[in-house]
Amino acid sequence: MMSSIKPPDDRLKESLVLPIKTLTGPGPSNCSERVLNANKLPMVGHLHKEFIKVMDDIKAGIQYAFQTHNDWTLAISGTGHAAMEAACCNLVEPNDVVLIGVNGIWGERFSNMAERQNANVKKMMKPMGETFTLEEIEQHLMTHKPVLLFLTQGESSAGTLQDLKGVGYLCHKYDCILVVDSVAALGGTAMFMDDWEIDVLYTGSQKVIGAPPGASPISFSERAKQKVLTRKKKITSFYFDMVELVKYWSADGVRQYHHTAPISNMFALREGLAELAEEGLERSWQRHNECALMLHNGITKLGLQLFVQDKKDRLPCITTVKVPEDVKWKDVVDYAMEKHLVEISGGLGNLAGKVWRIGLMGQNARRDIVQKVLIALGDSLKNATKSPSN
Amino acid sequence: MMSSIKPPDDRLKESLVLPIKTLTGPGPSNCSERVLNANKLPMVGHLHKEFIKVMDDIKAGIQYAFQTHNDWTLAISGTGHAAMEAACCNLVEPNDVVLIGVNGIWGERFSNMAERQNANVKKMMKPMGETFTLEEIEQHLMTHKPVLLFLTQGESSAGTLQDLKGVGYLCHKYDCILVVDSVAALGGTAMFMDDWEIDVLYTGSQKVIGAPPGASPISFSERAKQKVLTRKKKITSFYFDMVELVKYWSADGVRQYHHTAPISNMFALREGLAELAEEGLERSWQRHNECALMLHNGITKLGLQLFVQDKKDRLPCITTVKVPEDVKWKDVVDYAMEKHLVEISGGLGNLAGKVWRIGLMGQNARRDIVQKVLIALGDSLKNATKSPSN
Repeated sequence: MMSSIKPPDDRLKESLVLPIKTLTGPGPSNCSERVLNANKLPMVGHLHKEFIKVMDDIKAGIQYAFQTHNDWTLAISGTGHAAMEAACCNLVEPNDVVLIGVNGIWGERFSNMAERQNANVKKMMKPMGETFTLEEIEQHLMTHKPVLLFLTQGESSAGTLQDLKGVGYLCHKYDCILVVDSVAALGGTAMFMDDWEIDVLYTGSQKVIGAPPGASPISFSERAKQKVLTRKKKITSFYFDMVELVKYWSADGVRQYHHTAPISNMFALREGLAELAEEGLERSWQRHNECALMLHNGITKLGLQLFVQDKKDRLPCITTVKVPEDVKWKDVVDYAMEKHLVEISGGLGNLAGKVWRIGLMGQNARRDIVQKVLIALGDSLKNATKSPSN
Repeated sequence: MMSSIKPPDDRLKESLVLPIKTLTGPGPSNCSERVLNANKLPMVGHLHKEFIKVMDDIKAGIQYAFQTHNDWTLAISGTGHAAMEAACCNLVEPNDVVLIGVNGIWGERFSNMAERQNANVKKMMKPMGETFTLEEIEQHLMTHKPVLLFLTQGESSAGTLQDLKGVGYLCHKYDCILVVDSVAALGGTAMFMDDWEIDVLYTGSQKVIGAPPGASPISFSERAKQKVLTRKKKITSFYFDMVELVKYWSADGVRQYHHTAPISNMFALREGLAELAEEGLERSWQRHNECALMLHNGITKLGLQLFVQDKKDRLPCITTVKVPEDVKWKDVVDYAMEKHLVEISGGLGNLAGKVWRIGLMGQNARRDIVQKVLIALGDSLKNATKSPSN
């Protein structure tokens, strides 16, 4: 019997048209014109010399943004979760004791991944909105003797910033590797990967760096590299296998084909990193901090309360705001989007329905954007709750 | 001690400028203007209604391109290898007997991945340039009683096209799941996923579909879905876990956040699939076939020989050409790129140094491009080998 071709759905005949929104949720953030133009550049091959140069630029850009000299520095060919999975599956072996700081969804997510690698997962718990002290961390390192500690620098679900100074030193005192998720923090707050003795650090492209999601910076210290090279069991993933990836990203001579990189994403990431280098880390960190403080003031003036109590625990990139008891959070979100094309996000995990999340990252960490968000939020609070359905 | 910021590398100050090449290697292929424009569209959130619509469009586009009604149809957030890994890690459990057709590098690659899942890998070998017959396949199914058979429709390293008619029926007769890699074939030659009883099919975005690499279509049949849902052990990957992915891609009500999709890649993939739907599969298959025949004729006229002997085994999308004994393959490749900006690729795996590979896919399956490649190849053969270094 000959097969006959079924026709395509009519929906594919429609034009692809998209509104221009102010993306002040937890990310993706808006991209600059320069970054979007890079995304439209003509295609080249994944082993062409022009692309190898872009890869080298990206490596240098990540080394700057992370403040590291690590040779095992590259961008994973996937979004932030892919980088998290790369960190996990390269380092974690079956039965490894893995200590995970959980004060929001990212610790839970890494636990999920570590369990899939048959790790012996120990959770160090803290309520959302709080962070871990060095004493708490040392206590858990002594108790569990983990081979790996996972912490989230910018816990985007809670809006907290984990202080990392001293944690790497502590980990190494107890012969433990430190893995840090900085997807929602990198570029918006201080990071000194080498000085802080962080062994694996990763981030996403679509937050402060301001590129489209799809290529995620990651770096492994010498200590992390040795852990990977002395594994007993092969890494479960081919796509994320760092031993293979560095032959594509870091070889001095001929680069070895491993997989086809997402070419356009790498162009855009290169430009995002170049823009960060152009501005300079110090100025970027300061700009994000100033915009966050301006937002916090404005929120208080609107009669709202910040969710994170201790000022030093507040992540400049993403701010969590308590939803007042008499307000339907979703109505405010929908109104702000519909009337102002401004994104204000709801809570995630245990905070669903309890907080809004406002992100000011990369292109959006600007005073005029802060004003715009505050106006949209104020207007939505006033009008969204007026509708008869409330 | 306060940390001080080290400055960025000067290489990041350079402008990102790229040449326009004719990408007639094994992929990535050139993108259409419409696709590149989509890649530059403003960012939106990964759960915004506009993006959910794009996901639904992509699902419909894949269902058309694959000729399937499968509900578990989506695009993996990574390049072709990511889709291969998704197929493997979702289906394969430790100790599963997995039969893999190896007549080029893709069978080897899937074997590598299956071994990482602790499968009991059985290889069905065939020299590069040849394909498997139904009799050979049935013999191996009877001998090994595998839970899964892997075949490559378009073996890009050898330039072969595997006939798939009847294979699915055979597999199901022996209670085996059929997984097919169509990265280098889909859209350029016939595919009837449902009629041919293929259980898992995947492809890349950067070949016939003509989008940038980074989002890879995949589909699971009801049988494959049941195998995933009745696994004894959890899938080792979170990022590629189909059970979680379908909650993001296919839920009728509220879509569940799983990971941030590569937004721009999905825009571009949507447009690539829409262009394929606009042209129609039959016409696209025919166009690729005609261009391949034109290329084959031209190559013979240049005094060269095709690597694949049996006409019915020739993949229209990628043609392998024997490198004459007195010619240095790399000189020809370099000359074609330098003087003509035309990509002709070398061999991969066992065929490294022995063949050139010429791809005519998507935008490049056009008569003028075939002419251009033949002129570049002819000129390079004549001139590249003249240099004193030879």
